[in-house]
Amino acid sequence: MQTDLSKKFGIEYPIFGFTPSEHVAAAISRAGGLGVLGCVRFNDPEELDAVLTWMDENTDGKPYGVDIVMPAKVPTEGTAVDLDSLIPAEHPAFVDRTLTELGVPPLGDDAEHATGVLGWLHSVARSHVDVALAHRPALIANALGSPPKDVIDLAHEKGVPVAALAGAVEHAKRHVENGVDIVIAQGYEAGGHTGEVASMVLWPEIVDAIGDSAAVLAAGGVGSGRQVAAALALGASGVWMGSYWLTTSEYKLGSAANGPSSIQRALLGASSSDTVRSRIYSGKPARLLKTKWTEAWSKPDAPSPLPMPLQNILVSEAHQRISAGNDPEVVAMPVGQIVGRMNEIRPVAEVMAELVDGYDKAVEKLNQAR
Amino acid sequence: MQTDLSKKFGIEYPIFGFTPSEHVAAAISRAGGLGVLGCVRFNDPEELDAVLTWMDENTDGKPYGVDIVMPAKVPTEGTAVDLDSLIPAEHPAFVDRTLTELGVPPLGDDAEHATGVLGWLHSVARSHVDVALAHRPALIANALGSPPKDVIDLAHEKGVPVAALAGAVEHAKRHVENGVDIVIAQGYEAGGHTGEVASMVLWPEIVDAIGDSAAVLAAGGVGSGRQVAAALALGASGVWMGSYWLTTSEYKLGSAANGPSSIQRALLGASSSDTVRSRIYSGKPARLLKTKWTEAWSKPDAPSPLPMPLQNILVSEAHQRISAGNDPEVVAMPVGQIVGRMNEIRPVAEVMAELVDGYDKAVEKLNQAR
Repeated sequence: MQTDLSKKFGIEYPIFGFTPSEHVAAAISRAGGLGVLGCVRFNDPEELDAVLTWMDENTDGKPYGVDIVMPAKVPTEGTAVDLDSLIPAEHPAFVDRTLTELGVPPLGDDAEHATGVLGWLHSVARSHVDVALAHRPALIANALGSPPKDVIDLAHEKGVPVAALAGAVEHAKRHVENGVDIVIAQGYEAGGHTGEVASMVLWPEIVDAIGDSAAVLAAGGVGSGRQVAAALALGASGVWMGSYWLTTSEYKLGSAANGPSSIQRALLGASSSDTVRSRIYSGKPARLLKTKWTEAWSKPDAPSPLPMPLQNILVSEAHQRISAGNDPEVVAMPVGQIVGRMNEIRPVAEVMAELVDGYDKAVEKLNQAR
Repeated sequence: MQTDLSKKFGIEYPIFGFTPSEHVAAAISRAGGLGVLGCVRFNDPEELDAVLTWMDENTDGKPYGVDIVMPAKVPTEGTAVDLDSLIPAEHPAFVDRTLTELGVPPLGDDAEHATGVLGWLHSVARSHVDVALAHRPALIANALGSPPKDVIDLAHEKGVPVAALAGAVEHAKRHVENGVDIVIAQGYEAGGHTGEVASMVLWPEIVDAIGDSAAVLAAGGVGSGRQVAAALALGASGVWMGSYWLTTSEYKLGSAANGPSSIQRALLGASSSDTVRSRIYSGKPARLLKTKWTEAWSKPDAPSPLPMPLQNILVSEAHQRISAGNDPEVVAMPVGQIVGRMNEIRPVAEVMAELVDGYDKAVEKLNQAR
């Protein structure tokens, strides 16, 4: 399972794994893919720096990447306090009422109250880039489209290719015009931010639209070797998987000391129909696990979600409470429709071996059908 | 490009082509696929009988199928006049107002006013089955799920396999329990009636869920040989294509004497983002071309669509007026996201040759990547 892109990165398989967990990211790189660490959760650049030092030391010298969340257009930006003043009173009242109705306990007296994921903010995302480039990232990806031109230029000066997510052909073309090296074509079925066009249609459409000017990674709906084979058959140079790593053994974010977290238990029980595309997580349409929390926001009395970055600031303490509440029926978590296949907790290496084996069998089947 | 299913049907390629046009269906069968004639437009059984006689004579002895629209549960049913009384006055008033606003002319004095597509009604669909079985169909497909048990038994007595559309795993399982031989797994991106789960996730999920108990045809997003290869890689035994034939030269429904119809011109200009999933066509969620007509129904003053079969009865004369109006910006037409690839009018044989060639190239590419 080699493509020009996997050869370029010097990795065994063209499988790019996005994850907020450094333990999962490192395991993906060690297993022959490219682990890409999501940085949006690091409000403190020093924490990210320490984690990337850990990555440097725990990837057996194999390449890894980082994923930032940086709008191409720099938004007007203030401190978290300034932004708070833009949130209408109706919204926090709805959030509080809903959490009470769903039985989510308040935070303990000793908890540090979340101020919102500042990683959505431009200044914080830019500090992520600076911190990352002091390590040895093999890729900088931007989950919100093209990074600003000076960030692309800076990465290129350091010899680091830049990837950007696209949910439609015109976005992909714009990324390439902006100097992006790899377009991540993210279909409707994907977890997190996603557009309306589904992977089967979107992937080959973007491959055809950008030709040889950039490589295409196929994202949205990938969790088996058959889907990797489908992605390459459709013209992609590799796959970008995010959701599927959330139920690996190495994923410990939000976990109690032993056993799966409430989020993982919710994911293990969900079918492919148990997701919803909504603006309630970040302010932009993102696919989330369907739970009592997402259902509350779709009721007639719910307010409309706020624009990015206000919506995430609005719900950040709610996310913290929900996470601490540990109820698998009340979860706030981006995940794709592939969640229907996420039915057991397994080590990353086992997932990777199954992807490779499934790929080989799928190609064998196609050869028999010729 | 041979699978067990194509061998079973004695066809060259496992490409099943659904179309309301007998000219297209016959051309698909002659080109090595299985043309499946959609019967819902035939209110008069004698007209269907004549068309199937034409199919018998124009398919070079090759197999073809028929597609009916028959709910498994027999709905309470009356004449068209009884059903009219169930339509609230607000709805036809909205339809009339909208058509006027969109500049759609009234029907000419000599036009026969449409009474609604009676093919949606159980009694009419059943007459389609009886008429079809007097010919030599190789397949009876039901676009609304499992046909009633006695219809399945009747088809099996005559040696005719039965196929049914499914948009979710539980529907597929139910079809198999009901005795259906082929499940058509129809992803979110498909035209016409469709569920929420996209093809990349739905196809392998249904393949795994029903195992060897039925064959799976992959539907939703197929319009190139790469997509056929992806479907087989994902475990399907063939593909079911509908939208893609609407821009073939043989498709003449709704056409003026020369050149493409207003519908075809609208399809040729549309991108993959120019569709919408809505209940306004039949009462159940179906993907349609996004035009001024569908946009009108999504405005705040629009009433909620009625349940099946009332909604189609409500809009049938509007569809007739829209079709006669010949304005590519005001069109009422089911089509999938693959419409973004439908950019020229070509003969069915040319489309089929391209599918086969694209399939071979995709498999070749996969072999090189091993």
